[in-house]
Amino acid sequence: MPLHPDGLFSPDPTVRSIARRLYEGVRALPIISPHGHTEPDWYAYDLPFPDPATLFVKPDHYILRMFYSQGMRMEDFGVPRLDGGPIETDPRKIWRRFAENYALFRGTPTRLWFEHSLATVFGIEERLGAKNADLLYDRIAEQLERPEMRPRALYKRFNIEAISTTDAATDALAAHDAIKASGWDGQVVPAYRPDAVVDPSRKGFHAEVERFLALAGTPTSYPGYLEAHRIRRAYFKQRGATSTDHGHPNARTADLSKAEATALFDRVLKADVSPEDADLFRAQMLTEMARMSVEDGLVMQIHPGSFRNHNPQIFTEFGFDKGADIPTGTDYVHDLKPLLDAFGNDTRLTLILFTLDETAYGRELAPLAGHYPALRLGPPWWFFDSPEGMYRFRKLTTETAGFYNTVGFNDDTRAFCSIPARHDMARRVDCNFLAELVADHRLDEDEAQEVAHDLAYRLAKKAYRL
Amino acid sequence: MPLHPDGLFSPDPTVRSIARRLYEGVRALPIISPHGHTEPDWYAYDLPFPDPATLFVKPDHYILRMFYSQGMRMEDFGVPRLDGGPIETDPRKIWRRFAENYALFRGTPTRLWFEHSLATVFGIEERLGAKNADLLYDRIAEQLERPEMRPRALYKRFNIEAISTTDAATDALAAHDAIKASGWDGQVVPAYRPDAVVDPSRKGFHAEVERFLALAGTPTSYPGYLEAHRIRRAYFKQRGATSTDHGHPNARTADLSKAEATALFDRVLKADVSPEDADLFRAQMLTEMARMSVEDGLVMQIHPGSFRNHNPQIFTEFGFDKGADIPTGTDYVHDLKPLLDAFGNDTRLTLILFTLDETAYGRELAPLAGHYPALRLGPPWWFFDSPEGMYRFRKLTTETAGFYNTVGFNDDTRAFCSIPARHDMARRVDCNFLAELVADHRLDEDEAQEVAHDLAYRLAKKAYRL
Amino acid sequence: MPLHPDGLFSPDPTVRSIARRLYEGVRALPIISPHGHTEPDWYAYDLPFPDPATLFVKPDHYILRMFYSQGMRMEDFGVPRLDGGPIETDPRKIWRRFAENYALFRGTPTRLWFEHSLATVFGIEERLGAKNADLLYDRIAEQLERPEMRPRALYKRFNIEAISTTDAATDALAAHDAIKASGWDGQVVPAYRPDAVVDPSRKGFHAEVERFLALAGTPTSYPGYLEAHRIRRAYFKQRGATSTDHGHPNARTADLSKAEATALFDRVLKADVSPEDADLFRAQMLTEMARMSVEDGLVMQIHPGSFRNHNPQIFTEFGFDKGADIPTGTDYVHDLKPLLDAFGNDTRLTLILFTLDETAYGRELAPLAGHYPALRLGPPWWFFDSPEGMYRFRKLTTETAGFYNTVGFNDDTRAFCSIPARHDMARRVDCNFLAELVADHRLDEDEAQEVAHDLAYRLAKKAYRL
Repeated sequence: MPLHPDGLFSPDPTVRSIARRLYEGVRALPIISPHGHTEPDWYAYDLPFPDPATLFVKPDHYILRMFYSQGMRMEDFGVPRLDGGPIETDPRKIWRRFAENYALFRGTPTRLWFEHSLATVFGIEERLGAKNADLLYDRIAEQLERPEMRPRALYKRFNIEAISTTDAATDALAAHDAIKASGWDGQVVPAYRPDAVVDPSRKGFHAEVERFLALAGTPTSYPGYLEAHRIRRAYFKQRGATSTDHGHPNARTADLSKAEATALFDRVLKADVSPEDADLFRAQMLTEMARMSVEDGLVMQIHPGSFRNHNPQIFTEFGFDKGADIPTGTDYVHDLKPLLDAFGNDTRLTLILFTLDETAYGRELAPLAGHYPALRLGPPWWFFDSPEGMYRFRKLTTETAGFYNTVGFNDDTRAFCSIPARHDMARRVDCNFLAELVADHRLDEDEAQEVAHDLAYRLAKKAYRL
Repeated sequence: MPLHPDGLFSPDPTVRSIARRLYEGVRALPIISPHGHTEPDWYAYDLPFPDPATLFVKPDHYILRMFYSQGMRMEDFGVPRLDGGPIETDPRKIWRRFAENYALFRGTPTRLWFEHSLATVFGIEERLGAKNADLLYDRIAEQLERPEMRPRALYKRFNIEAISTTDAATDALAAHDAIKASGWDGQVVPAYRPDAVVDPSRKGFHAEVERFLALAGTPTSYPGYLEAHRIRRAYFKQRGATSTDHGHPNARTADLSKAEATALFDRVLKADVSPEDADLFRAQMLTEMARMSVEDGLVMQIHPGSFRNHNPQIFTEFGFDKGADIPTGTDYVHDLKPLLDAFGNDTRLTLILFTLDETAYGRELAPLAGHYPALRLGPPWWFFDSPEGMYRFRKLTTETAGFYNTVGFNDDTRAFCSIPARHDMARRVDCNFLAELVADHRLDEDEAQEVAHDLAYRLAKKAYRL
Repeated sequence: MPLHPDGLFSPDPTVRSIARRLYEGVRALPIISPHGHTEPDWYAYDLPFPDPATLFVKPDHYILRMFYSQGMRMEDFGVPRLDGGPIETDPRKIWRRFAENYALFRGTPTRLWFEHSLATVFGIEERLGAKNADLLYDRIAEQLERPEMRPRALYKRFNIEAISTTDAATDALAAHDAIKASGWDGQVVPAYRPDAVVDPSRKGFHAEVERFLALAGTPTSYPGYLEAHRIRRAYFKQRGATSTDHGHPNARTADLSKAEATALFDRVLKADVSPEDADLFRAQMLTEMARMSVEDGLVMQIHPGSFRNHNPQIFTEFGFDKGADIPTGTDYVHDLKPLLDAFGNDTRLTLILFTLDETAYGRELAPLAGHYPALRLGPPWWFFDSPEGMYRFRKLTTETAGFYNTVGFNDDTRAFCSIPARHDMARRVDCNFLAELVADHRLDEDEAQEVAHDLAYRLAKKAYRL
């Protein structure tokens, strides 16, 4: 089932016909991708993608977690073990396993992204299964060798206008420099993600801070550490960055006195940081990042509420990002207050909030973003980047925050071929939502057309200053 | 877009035709408005409303918060600064700003209320915008001078059968007396809202308690304080009051021994009340209010869960109710237990619960109201007094609590002209919800007709004893 | 209104026609009832059900709570008082009260279950009311005397393939033995529910543990206590049990060292167990039960999050299960971690999670079950075993956990005649949900047909190892 022309539109004829018209107006708009995890190397060196399994299966945490949940082994999908133990290395075998268990993805966005990519990028409209696994493998593999399947060509074909990668604070951004130096005209910008030097509970934090200070050439002191952030942010900004990003276990912020913050910094620099000190330091740093954003204009993003590596066995054997991250309840109203007290009224700041706790949409996030000038709501994230998730986001936030305190769509992906699929899904769901408002006479169609355009293109560009 | 005949009805032809029939049966029923914030002076002195901006924009916290969230200044909409600093005083300029930024309200109930009022009260069916701002201003201003636009005439035209204001415990209710004395036959009753003498964390609490005791002529002691409540409640009841209302940060209740309560009262009478003592005193007072309601028959309302004045800058510059109130999670199951242990089984008590935490609808509120004879569920409140909010309320409470543990609609507004719009919205959403139950064969249409009538009229009258 | 052929299907013609086709494929499948509360005595001794009120009204906690919430007395519905005080004993009068107040159930699943039972079991398609109360009473009473209305005949007529009862750990399972001994070919199996010997906060815990140890013949020590569980589980397993069930106030688990657990056991054996010790002991026992399940293959179920006997007056006068149980927020992410750290990756374990906190569906349960191989999601439970509840369950879990981390339907009932109604409701809601996915092109119809079959029959059989 390739994505049907009426895919994700209401079957009601009235709504569907309005949705079609709205969608027709935004279908072909350029893609603004202001937050994501594609590799800058792809654009810099423009090498072919290796094989179908590496392109679609092995790096996809949505796929891996579903298979793992059904009792399959990570190793059988080619996921490297940290101990170097044996894993499946034949991409065709991995692809076959994927095909044989394809029914597991019924009703999931993974299925929709995959089929949209297959259809629009590779021209394959058959449903994958055990029987045609090899045939489809060959058809994809054959195409991957063609020049029009390289990253830069796909970037153009996908009609991407700008895309942001996400990069560690200590990243030299060599690939970004190489892109610039190459003269290629794609707009690929970095984003400043300093978690590794901000979160004392992360393995390797102390070594990373040392590297960070050395890179910036600042002293090992709290002022030196803050100055290092300023220097690295400027370095990113010079290379086109317009945003920072912060992935924290919760939304806690703090605004300590200089003396308290300095003492805290001294404590977290020692081995054996207490969990409370680690939490407080992360909290303090969000407010410091907001302060710097007011100065340098980088848009700030907070992605809170993931309990990372919930499964210690998976973490020990395979490391980060292998599907063992679980959402938790998140309190924005109390946790953000110190930061908001300091900068919530400052129109120079744009702070974009994300959530893995949908109960916060109507109760906390829409009321907060519908009041504070500095706040905007990011699109549905991760488990909720799906038709139902997007629909609930609009249903639960629009009446309080309106459309103009939201910022359009993020594809947030490392799966390059799925980028058009994800933006298309968002455009369809938004057009369908708007069509419902038109159909029961809450909005006029000319207005809906304008909003659809804003949600698909203009808001992301404006909010992220791209 | 004025409210369409099929506004808020499903576009599905089956559902829509049932909804139309149900709505036809309740469309013209009188309005019972058992909880709201209109000014008793309006009915007492029947003066004309001054101008379009003062009628529609300046006092509307929904509108102000949306503009503020988009970086506009409160001053530019004529909101008085506490320091007396300069603000916009030209109502026409305020109106123009509203018109120019009207697109911000797309998808919000503010838009629907405004357009319904404009169409039904002023006969204006054009969509407001920068271009027609002055024209519409003039058309409204001209009509506001007519006698049929005065409060008493509108009360009749709106087909209001009874309306409750909300009044401080220390209010002399002079306007209510003036209404009675005038011989006018509208039914305007006060409601007893003692927050200012119940919440020790409020600024001015101690002075207010002093005034309260003086007014009642009771001694400064816990028994004297409770007696003052009894005296003031009786004073309100003599003037037609049928209810009390309590706006608390949470739903906490307590049922302390006499000795503990007396000691607590003595502590909160001193300066520098601790937050825990303030919270406990509020909790204790809810149970005392329930005890008095059992005696005097006043229906009790609790509106919990708003973090008031979340934004200290706005509070300092502009004071209360300026859009910086944010909902928080609310625990009804544990917090209400002391009160319910004492009075939950008492059929003489009607305690109406409201929420700003929609997660409580299905998990806590419907199961509680579906068990305790004293409990009823109030309609969706504040951020959720909207088409989607009302729909979710029915979806999430009906299967457990049924329709007859709910109490019809509250408009809860200070915007007089929007009263018919708000009741009409509730009637439409309820009729559409019922139509869905009929359409998929969960309910017969004759029953739905009866329920629609109950929700639009009878339940409010009965629950509030009006 | 008996359940219409299109009952619970979308009125949209496209969705409805797909739903009809899907439903036609699963309508007549045998019933697998892997979790419920019917009496094993019914099947063992096959006596007639006494009268309409005892069949439909007196034991139904959904009905009792609704009536009680509206100010009616439990006594008037024949609910025995613990003090032996006077209650209504005439079933016809109880039935009349039910009929007179039948409007209270509009919009509730109680109404749908009742009318489905009336129509399909007794051939009565009239709507109950005050006028026909006696007539319908007589028609039901007359039929209850017929041989085809006895439990075994109904079991066959309902097309039940297997049904599980729920039994105390100390139950001798005499009725189950009697069923076997009788040679009847119905498959009625017990389930091991050890709450009374696991929860130290329950009245009578100490006496029950004594009985339990005596029954197993093991010493009064922690190892002896654990061994008693092993012995009793084996006893249940020999009689066909495939599962255990655990009803706890929360989802807390613990994995203490042997020394800590032994010391805890010694403390809870004494009188006056502290609430924290009681909670910790329950937590520890969940992990012990998982450990035993890994060994003996019994599927484990956790039903957490009910605040039992919230209303002390009802509990004192009428005892357990009288409608005063209220859901509370439940944290699965942190609470289950000790158990999951120990056994979450073990494919020999099947742990089925239930919830009364719907906010956990998307945020916690679907991500957990979509990752851990040992976890599966149980169907909507109790207050959420309803059309809207089932629909929300699919909407909120499918995109993350898919269909194959869920386990089909549980009727979970003690109301024998409602079993077909409940399964029919689940099949209809699932078919309608699938039809929506087909209608907006997220799923092909041949796949939906297969999923519908899985949800109605195969998944329950497989997950519960029946």
